[in-house]
Amino acid sequence: MTDFVAPPLNPPVRLLLGPGPSEIHPRVLRALSANTVGHLDPYYLTLMSDMQQMLRCLFRTQNPMTMAISATGSAGMESTVVNLIEPGDSMVVCVNGVFGERMFDVAGRAGANVTRVDRPWGDIFEPSHLKEALAKKPKVVGIVLAETSTGALQPLEEISKLVHEAGALLLVDAVTALGGVPVEVDKLDIDAIYSGSQKCLSCPPGLAPASFSERALQVVLNRKTKVQSWYLDVSMLAKYWGQERVYHHTGPINMSYGLYEALRIVLEEGQEASFARHLLNHKALKAGLAAIGIKYAAREGHQLPMLNAVTIPDGVDDAKVRGALLNRFGIEIGGGLGAFKGKVWRIGLMGHGSRQANVLTFLGALEQLLAEQGYKFEHGASTAAANESYLSHKA
Amino acid sequence: MTDFVAPPLNPPVRLLLGPGPSEIHPRVLRALSANTVGHLDPYYLTLMSDMQQMLRCLFRTQNPMTMAISATGSAGMESTVVNLIEPGDSMVVCVNGVFGERMFDVAGRAGANVTRVDRPWGDIFEPSHLKEALAKKPKVVGIVLAETSTGALQPLEEISKLVHEAGALLLVDAVTALGGVPVEVDKLDIDAIYSGSQKCLSCPPGLAPASFSERALQVVLNRKTKVQSWYLDVSMLAKYWGQERVYHHTGPINMSYGLYEALRIVLEEGQEASFARHLLNHKALKAGLAAIGIKYAAREGHQLPMLNAVTIPDGVDDAKVRGALLNRFGIEIGGGLGAFKGKVWRIGLMGHGSRQANVLTFLGALEQLLAEQGYKFEHGASTAAANESYLSHKA
Repeated sequence: MTDFVAPPLNPPVRLLLGPGPSEIHPRVLRALSANTVGHLDPYYLTLMSDMQQMLRCLFRTQNPMTMAISATGSAGMESTVVNLIEPGDSMVVCVNGVFGERMFDVAGRAGANVTRVDRPWGDIFEPSHLKEALAKKPKVVGIVLAETSTGALQPLEEISKLVHEAGALLLVDAVTALGGVPVEVDKLDIDAIYSGSQKCLSCPPGLAPASFSERALQVVLNRKTKVQSWYLDVSMLAKYWGQERVYHHTGPINMSYGLYEALRIVLEEGQEASFARHLLNHKALKAGLAAIGIKYAAREGHQLPMLNAVTIPDGVDDAKVRGALLNRFGIEIGGGLGAFKGKVWRIGLMGHGSRQANVLTFLGALEQLLAEQGYKFEHGASTAAANESYLSHKA
Repeated sequence: MTDFVAPPLNPPVRLLLGPGPSEIHPRVLRALSANTVGHLDPYYLTLMSDMQQMLRCLFRTQNPMTMAISATGSAGMESTVVNLIEPGDSMVVCVNGVFGERMFDVAGRAGANVTRVDRPWGDIFEPSHLKEALAKKPKVVGIVLAETSTGALQPLEEISKLVHEAGALLLVDAVTALGGVPVEVDKLDIDAIYSGSQKCLSCPPGLAPASFSERALQVVLNRKTKVQSWYLDVSMLAKYWGQERVYHHTGPINMSYGLYEALRIVLEEGQEASFARHLLNHKALKAGLAAIGIKYAAREGHQLPMLNAVTIPDGVDDAKVRGALLNRFGIEIGGGLGAFKGKVWRIGLMGHGSRQANVLTFLGALEQLLAEQGYKFEHGASTAAANESYLSHKA
């Protein structure tokens, strides 16, 4: 076998307006290439502490056990489930999209006795939808705050109350939510939560911010069985991320640099300003799409500002449009997943990517491609409507 | 809670001569900051294929299921164990250091019925040590090729034969080995193997190259139970890394850029040249240390070229020497782990870090610090002996 040396690295320049990875801030890219130190270097230990403190700000929590799992968002999901669940424990999983579906799978693999509650894709859970499942007194209830596959934003206030009244722990997927909408861990009494670096934090994929309440941590520390995953065992991770700094695994140094810088950027802007910016650009995009007859897949009033899942108009070729966006305009948007495959586009305006320039670029390019496919609409209507939206919200 | 913005990123410059992360090649650092593309972008899919092919070269295998797990080396370990083991399956784990110990823990968490075979730290396993355990016909035998905690290199030829004669699968830890010594997956008939990006590949920590034989893959595909880890389930990963390219998790794009460039560098140099370089610098370091009376912890004839575990001389203060190396010279070496804590230093000459300049810098700094502690030796002896070693091997 002859050794193969691949060609020099040369990635094309893309405008990342899909469901993540999002546009990466240039400062984050530069941070990734900073000189590496050891995972037990005093500098790295301080950086870990600072990263934890910044994550606590974003999660709006005082939880000591707030850190970044050394893997992508899906491992963040797995970390919350496998730490809280012992074989035979009961768990309720709310499924209204791909990521609820994934949590259901993960919970089963952890040995949970899972009750699944379904809602139509694009819809949300009302408190009443959970009453029957909560009557069974589950140990854990898992739910997705921002369902990336449908663009739905799940209200949690009342559900959190019901979950805790039933004596259960509340486990929340905030992969797409964190940094783009308020994620109130303490106020909502969330027990375990995880996110991903590559959405509204505008850092490349590879890390999963996570936080465990004191109550959840006690559940982990008082388990009868070992956590099935050594890598994700929070009782050991707590010693690496806590005061002891006991070596567990080799921390992902340079990815941590990236996340550190990404968190600095979000907090420099200010969370309220960032949330407002996400909302402003979402409204403009929505106005622009409405002007050319394109509708949202998620329920009205519960649409995510950072992830716009829209229904592909009849007669329009999904693959052709997305392919031309990518190849002619360098723009990536996402296709539909699962039940939404071929039916939905997912347009991300996340973190650094949530900008007026991107909204206008995307709408202009989309109009061009729709026109080529014979779709009937008034040219220029979408960018005009988007700009009107900006004007009206600045007035 | 007031938002906290951490200070600007400003890591100190270190010479990484510990057990990993190793010195990172500047080309790899630059690759990390290349512009991000999506995880399903045609460019990224090609990059994945090329990375797989380069990993096959390094693992010396034709295994289609060769890829990089999206997490650090310890998750690589977990991926091999949890895919091959179903609850109740029997597994033999060979323990002669921290990483064998870790594998024993991981196997138990996967529900294996584990037989543990111990050897003294620093020693290796002879085929005879495994006969009794193999008589029980285990499903899997796990062993560490390069034990990073002791510096021992484990011969696998005969053990592989015995393991397969017993009808078992051979699972090998090559975290520290890959890129520094030959790792002959096909020739040695290894069924599952994993490594880490941060050792002899000179890439930051965060990815775990891994390979599964066709035999191992069939075992995974014919399991009666689901793999307990969704994130590490090779049956699903095989669809993302295989022809189908079915979305599983969001690939760690920029870390992949780094590993891609790191693999290019190793293969540009050539594996034989890289192995010879590691050996040359190891011999010189060893000659230098011998000249000032410092001995190796691992058994003679079975010492790793990339990780030199040496016994701390009597009367020398471990913490003081390592602290001063770091703070005054910017040099990181590793302390001892587990049974070797306070007794052993671990000096890594890995990948890009395995260079004559580093050997001499380290020996010179060490001499200075030993002299300050009143250690008796002839000044200059270690660097002279190291340089003599270089001269003799170049002759």
